[in-house]
Amino acid sequence: MKILITNDDGIYAQGIDELVNFFLKKEAKVYVVAPDRERSASGQAITLHSPLRAQKVTKWEKAISWAVDGTPTDCVKLGLAELVDDSIDMVISGINIGPNLGTDVLYSGTVSAAIEGAVSGVPAIAISLVSADNIDFSYSANVAYRFAKLMYNNNVPKDTLLNINVPDGEENKIKGLKYTVLGQVRYKNPFEKRKDPRGKHYYWLSGERNQDVSNRQSDVYAISKNFVSVCPIHFDFTNYRLLEIIKDWK
Amino acid sequence: MKILITNDDGIYAQGIDELVNFFLKKEAKVYVVAPDRERSASGQAITLHSPLRAQKVTKWEKAISWAVDGTPTDCVKLGLAELVDDSIDMVISGINIGPNLGTDVLYSGTVSAAIEGAVSGVPAIAISLVSADNIDFSYSANVAYRFAKLMYNNNVPKDTLLNINVPDGEENKIKGLKYTVLGQVRYKNPFEKRKDPRGKHYYWLSGERNQDVSNRQSDVYAISKNFVSVCPIHFDFTNYRLLEIIKDWK
Repeated sequence: MKILITNDDGIYAQGIDELVNFFLKKEAKVYVVAPDRERSASGQAITLHSPLRAQKVTKWEKAISWAVDGTPTDCVKLGLAELVDDSIDMVISGINIGPNLGTDVLYSGTVSAAIEGAVSGVPAIAISLVSADNIDFSYSANVAYRFAKLMYNNNVPKDTLLNINVPDGEENKIKGLKYTVLGQVRYKNPFEKRKDPRGKHYYWLSGERNQDVSNRQSDVYAISKNFVSVCPIHFDFTNYRLLEIIKDWK
Repeated sequence: MKILITNDDGIYAQGIDELVNFFLKKEAKVYVVAPDRERSASGQAITLHSPLRAQKVTKWEKAISWAVDGTPTDCVKLGLAELVDDSIDMVISGINIGPNLGTDVLYSGTVSAAIEGAVSGVPAIAISLVSADNIDFSYSANVAYRFAKLMYNNNVPKDTLLNINVPDGEENKIKGLKYTVLGQVRYKNPFEKRKDPRGKHYYWLSGERNQDVSNRQSDVYAISKNFVSVCPIHFDFTNYRLLEIIKDWK
């Protein structure tokens, strides 16, 4: 397996380090193209108005690696088109610290990088650990590896894309795995309004996460019950149901 | 109709100016919350790591307006949650200069702002003019207005979201309107590799647009034949087809 690994927490984050080392241990051929600093919540942003630089990084002895001063999506585009002189079997993005569930995947740099892989014709996985502290990435790395092997062995279509979230806590508390649909995540009071030292107002995005766990098929439900969530996503955003309705307008 | 208008070309762009003036002329109640400068290709990026400022703008006498130092998605979030003290019936994003078709909508700040409206429970329209010069926005503004009225009068579901593209050229050359699905847009040679004055390499995103017009239902086909394209989109990215397949894995 020849893998391109990226993330949105930046190339020096612990999550990508453990992911790379796990795949190297399993004798995958690993290339890394990742942002040179944290670029979370980048969505599918790309850099049009300024050039990109790619710096070779010697962080991993056996993985050819570049740090790029762009977004996660830039990294995948540049990696596949220019930097990596090899045919890549799979793009893997992560391991992200924190969940990428439900409607939040819209904003996620981690998931967007995986989408970019699939758009470019390379099957992809986004992997996130629903945790903020006490971080042990080894189980998540193993899950990513298992699904990479499954996708590789099943010779999946090139647009195949899995969004995987692993629950927080001890491995022996994880109840199993659920194949899920994207759920609903909303935020109450999304901004804090504050005053700066000169008395002028500013706003800072924050908000209380409000997950709807009523849909038992959903990724948010699976995580709330300590299951690994594996959600297949795609990038045909056509609303076919609505298409049938609006055809009758006028 | 109470409308929140935004864009990704920035609040001082001509496209948003003509859109705002058209809706004001039709006696809509218009609020504007738009980026203080060009933020195209932002995707659904949001600003987490720095605060946002909103500056009141007196550009339009009858539209209460703010310029925000964030992304198009930030503008919609901040507008709906904090700035606008009114119940908004619809979010309209545009008029963008240039197409937002097929897989390119993934990167589009214009379309992402409209998606954010729908995610927040407000029906939305993204409107783009497929042109780079000789820009006459009046027909596009009229199309946006007609669909805003249709959505309003049909009392559409809150997650309704239309991506509208208007072909370039004289109004009398436009052949009509097609309800479409998202097509395929790919880029050949996506980067230019150049050398800076010190002899170091850099990369600039460019590439030749490669539209697949074989699908006659698609937005790219409609535009290639001089039809207005109206594509309903949604934000449930679950790949239900793939979900059925992977359930049999292992």
